[in-house]
Amino acid sequence: MRTAVTEMFGIDLPIFAFSHCRDVVLEASRAGGMGILGAAWMTPEELEVSLKWIDERIDGKPYGVDIVFPGTFAPLTDDRDPEKILPAGHRQFVNQLMDQAGIPPLPEDDAKAFAREHADKMKMTPSDSERSLQIALRHPSVKFIVSAMGAAPRHVVDLVHEHGLKVGALVGNIDHAMKQKEVGVDVLIAQGAEAGGHVGRVGSMVLWPQLVDAMAPIPVLAAGGIGRGRQFAAAMALGAAGAWCGSIWLGTRESDLTPVMRERLFEAKSEDAVVSKALTGKNCRILRSNYTEAWDKSADVKPLTFPLQSILGGEPLRRAERVRRMDYWTYAVGQIVGDMQQETSVRQIFAEMLGEYVEVMENLNAMLDE
Amino acid sequence: MRTAVTEMFGIDLPIFAFSHCRDVVLEASRAGGMGILGAAWMTPEELEVSLKWIDERIDGKPYGVDIVFPGTFAPLTDDRDPEKILPAGHRQFVNQLMDQAGIPPLPEDDAKAFAREHADKMKMTPSDSERSLQIALRHPSVKFIVSAMGAAPRHVVDLVHEHGLKVGALVGNIDHAMKQKEVGVDVLIAQGAEAGGHVGRVGSMVLWPQLVDAMAPIPVLAAGGIGRGRQFAAAMALGAAGAWCGSIWLGTRESDLTPVMRERLFEAKSEDAVVSKALTGKNCRILRSNYTEAWDKSADVKPLTFPLQSILGGEPLRRAERVRRMDYWTYAVGQIVGDMQQETSVRQIFAEMLGEYVEVMENLNAMLDE
Repeated sequence: MRTAVTEMFGIDLPIFAFSHCRDVVLEASRAGGMGILGAAWMTPEELEVSLKWIDERIDGKPYGVDIVFPGTFAPLTDDRDPEKILPAGHRQFVNQLMDQAGIPPLPEDDAKAFAREHADKMKMTPSDSERSLQIALRHPSVKFIVSAMGAAPRHVVDLVHEHGLKVGALVGNIDHAMKQKEVGVDVLIAQGAEAGGHVGRVGSMVLWPQLVDAMAPIPVLAAGGIGRGRQFAAAMALGAAGAWCGSIWLGTRESDLTPVMRERLFEAKSEDAVVSKALTGKNCRILRSNYTEAWDKSADVKPLTFPLQSILGGEPLRRAERVRRMDYWTYAVGQIVGDMQQETSVRQIFAEMLGEYVEVMENLNAMLDE
Repeated sequence: MRTAVTEMFGIDLPIFAFSHCRDVVLEASRAGGMGILGAAWMTPEELEVSLKWIDERIDGKPYGVDIVFPGTFAPLTDDRDPEKILPAGHRQFVNQLMDQAGIPPLPEDDAKAFAREHADKMKMTPSDSERSLQIALRHPSVKFIVSAMGAAPRHVVDLVHEHGLKVGALVGNIDHAMKQKEVGVDVLIAQGAEAGGHVGRVGSMVLWPQLVDAMAPIPVLAAGGIGRGRQFAAAMALGAAGAWCGSIWLGTRESDLTPVMRERLFEAKSEDAVVSKALTGKNCRILRSNYTEAWDKSADVKPLTFPLQSILGGEPLRRAERVRRMDYWTYAVGQIVGDMQQETSVRQIFAEMLGEYVEVMENLNAMLDE
């Protein structure tokens, strides 16, 4: 296939695979698409290790890195001791919730180490994200830097361009897209309300063509609700230059979710992927659980702002995960979760997506001929 | 084009146009698609007049009627004096809201007549809907009866089938679709969350293929977010047998909205089409206004249940409309409203939809050839 983005990156298929897991990124680029590593939850050291690991295996094929550039929220200071930055009432709320559910606390030493490490991984200061960027720029197969949330600062965009890389950004409406255009992004990722993670309110069916028209000639990748060839074909019919998928890789054997987490996703219906502030403090589509419902129904204690709510959730969610109490676990996932039923692989998803795409085209052409 | 529904109804194009306005219905069937008259807000006498008007002009082309069969809500009794069935506190809430906005009350005689007539039009008892059905069945060009909300009773489905007509139903998730399958519907209309009116939570991109696969061989029409050829093509790519559009006709010259109402829609963005209980008491995607926000933010007085909230809203919305205070008006409309910018016509929309569909197919085929 040939579109603006296959030309831009020299790839065979305009399918972009967002994942926090390096194995998914590697396999997606190997399959002819492009893997995008989500760096938001890694320390700079971890990012360096992951990029080195990918670079050594990817045979020069291109891949990307997705970085949070603080802009639309108050960045943290470097002092991020959870006991100092989280209100006591909020810590009590989550601890009580887990206690009442009979979920044992973490062993004390583990708890302290975990909380500190978890807060460190947030990397939510401008210097954090620029360190991650510098690391990404040193890795020769990284060809695409994506801003996960809001517009990256102009000097960041310029720096990426000076290195010969392209800049992308996720957007959920026209106003956000205009801001990205102003700072000079090369690719927009239009994320419909079906998507997992931080989402806007406009559904993919309406959002994608709106952005394609308003932002031309900037190519638009379609995100939100794509997991199979029919949806890939729909994205291309709606004028997208390619597809951006995230949730669908969570069910692959390359994903770093545990088998019990994957099972939980396989059981979920599309309507279990709800928009809530429970996980991050911003509207985020996540798997509904007792943890998310406790926040959504709480009248007194309200979710903290981003990224404090994410830091707050680290320990209780780790508690639930540790004893496999998945009824109190949650994870960012889109409505496509309702179609994920069993373990598969990145390669298999690519093969099925392409096979079904071709089938769809045959059906559509036959419909018109008759 | 040839699909399961063009075969079923002997029409040229699988495009279904839902409207409360007979002119839209007529023009849609004339253009080669199929108009569906929404009968929910008409007295049986008005329905008879409209169907006769259509029948006389449609040259034997088929059309449909959409009827509310009470099932999922407590039906009203025949006594529907607004002063008796609406709580005083709620009537006070809406009256104060309009008073405070400086919107004059209706002249007293008008107000009484309007309120009574408005309540009468609800036709929300089983006998109301069966009277409407009997009227529809007497009109020879009516070939399709659609249940607007929940499953029609089995005997209704059987009666329609005995008359040689087909039965359709709007659904927003798999569970609802299963119930419709049980009562024997012939066509499902899968309505994604982008749609105007009563909606579920699953976006079109995910819902449509899910229902297509789960309900086969029942043909599925795609609804929610379709207003142009790209979206029509996406619907077909996702496996639908055709497209069902509602909102897009509101901006046509055939629509019975006043010019000032249409202007209000042309100014709106997609994000102004919000899900709220303000209009009907059920989750309904409607145009955001001071009226809807007053309900959405009200801590004490909560929306009544369906259909009482609709009856309650009749008079205040009529007040706003009468003096063109569109900042207090609302109407059911989908997210596609963000793409409606100027008056057009039913025929023009059909022509553009088909033209763009063909263009999309050419582009998609070219992409694969290269």
